[in-house]
Amino acid sequence: MDSGIGRRRSSALAEGGAAYAERRNEIIAAAAHVFREKGYRGASLAAVAESLGTDRATLYYYIGSKEELFHEIVHGAAEANAAEAEAIRDSDGSAPDKIGRLITALMLSYARHYPYLYVYIQQDFSHVTDKKSAWSRKMKAIYRRYDDAVVATVQQGIDEGSIRAIGSARTIANGIIGMVNWTHRWYRDDSAGMPSAAEIGETFADAILNGLRVEAPHLTGTDQPETTHP
Amino acid sequence: MDSGIGRRRSSALAEGGAAYAERRNEIIAAAAHVFREKGYRGASLAAVAESLGTDRATLYYYIGSKEELFHEIVHGAAEANAAEAEAIRDSDGSAPDKIGRLITALMLSYARHYPYLYVYIQQDFSHVTDKKSAWSRKMKAIYRRYDDAVVATVQQGIDEGSIRAIGSARTIANGIIGMVNWTHRWYRDDSAGMPSAAEIGETFADAILNGLRVEAPHLTGTDQPETTHP
Repeated sequence: MDSGIGRRRSSALAEGGAAYAERRNEIIAAAAHVFREKGYRGASLAAVAESLGTDRATLYYYIGSKEELFHEIVHGAAEANAAEAEAIRDSDGSAPDKIGRLITALMLSYARHYPYLYVYIQQDFSHVTDKKSAWSRKMKAIYRRYDDAVVATVQQGIDEGSIRAIGSARTIANGIIGMVNWTHRWYRDDSAGMPSAAEIGETFADAILNGLRVEAPHLTGTDQPETTHP
Repeated sequence: MDSGIGRRRSSALAEGGAAYAERRNEIIAAAAHVFREKGYRGASLAAVAESLGTDRATLYYYIGSKEELFHEIVHGAAEANAAEAEAIRDSDGSAPDKIGRLITALMLSYARHYPYLYVYIQQDFSHVTDKKSAWSRKMKAIYRRYDDAVVATVQQGIDEGSIRAIGSARTIANGIIGMVNWTHRWYRDDSAGMPSAAEIGETFADAILNGLRVEAPHLTGTDQPETTHP
């Protein structure tokens, strides 16, 4: 790529014209579909251009590289997840209800942004990416917002007495987030016999909120844990 | 490294003398401590040799590279985890009790083998390592044994009526394993304020078996999920 187009792109980005920004966002949205169809490795700027009925040279006026597109897409998805988690935290309802909604919302997001959001989270970004890049700093801030919203919701439940205080709010939140995030290792949206993302979210929410244990009368007193429901 | 020592090591390995195997196992055990102290990047064959009071040249008769040591150590830890999970599956007791033991045993294993077992699981081995290598095939088989033991335990609980059938045994098992495996992103054994591995395991086991929700009388009927305890 020649640096002339790079300079033109940089100044168009800095200048911030509305039409330029709008077209760039259209390209990012189209690229999300291409990443979804072809995965990160299979996706190319040429395929993104083709899906928009344009050519790669035109695309370069808006986007410098496949990596830049990937960063924009992942950033947008993670930002939406953080905003949704904060909205759930701040909504009416009991903490258990909110925790259930947090779990299903995150699982549905991974399916909606499959597979590129998984491509991001399966990398341990403390090792893989340049920690000092502007993008990494932005992503870290977004993930902190997401985590903090879940921790605050759990803490709210502990404070209001609707969530059992069986550990710190952060440990409990880490467990909740971990169940869902680990789906990046096994959830495939085209695999026969795979439950839907909605089903997985509901199973996880039900398990963590209500417990897997059947509280059958014949088990009570012999098979109950030391820490029982108050 | 010259190929003469490589050939001598290969033939000693193939020949399988008891004294050679025993010394090699001692080196692997010592290396586990070095990996634990220094992490994968910080560890070196020189440091392993030093901890054994020998030199690197002697070590090469037993071990070809740092990567080979890492593979042997991780293999041993994962093999022990699979065997422990199978023993829990086959033990007496109710499925909920076994699930609690599976969770705490895995968490304790990550702490005992910190950080090198995490170094392994944080890599998505389908991308990072050579899938066709003998080591990768062995590791895949071990992880399948581990997964299958957890799935079978959950299925046993569903069959005996002690675990609520709120999803397939595999989905539930994936959630359980995910909670614990995701600790590789946040558990640090030297971090102030971090709960112990035993505490984390107990919190997770209690949450997933008994539910986070306080079943307070005033919430019953208004805040219960559609899927309640039978």
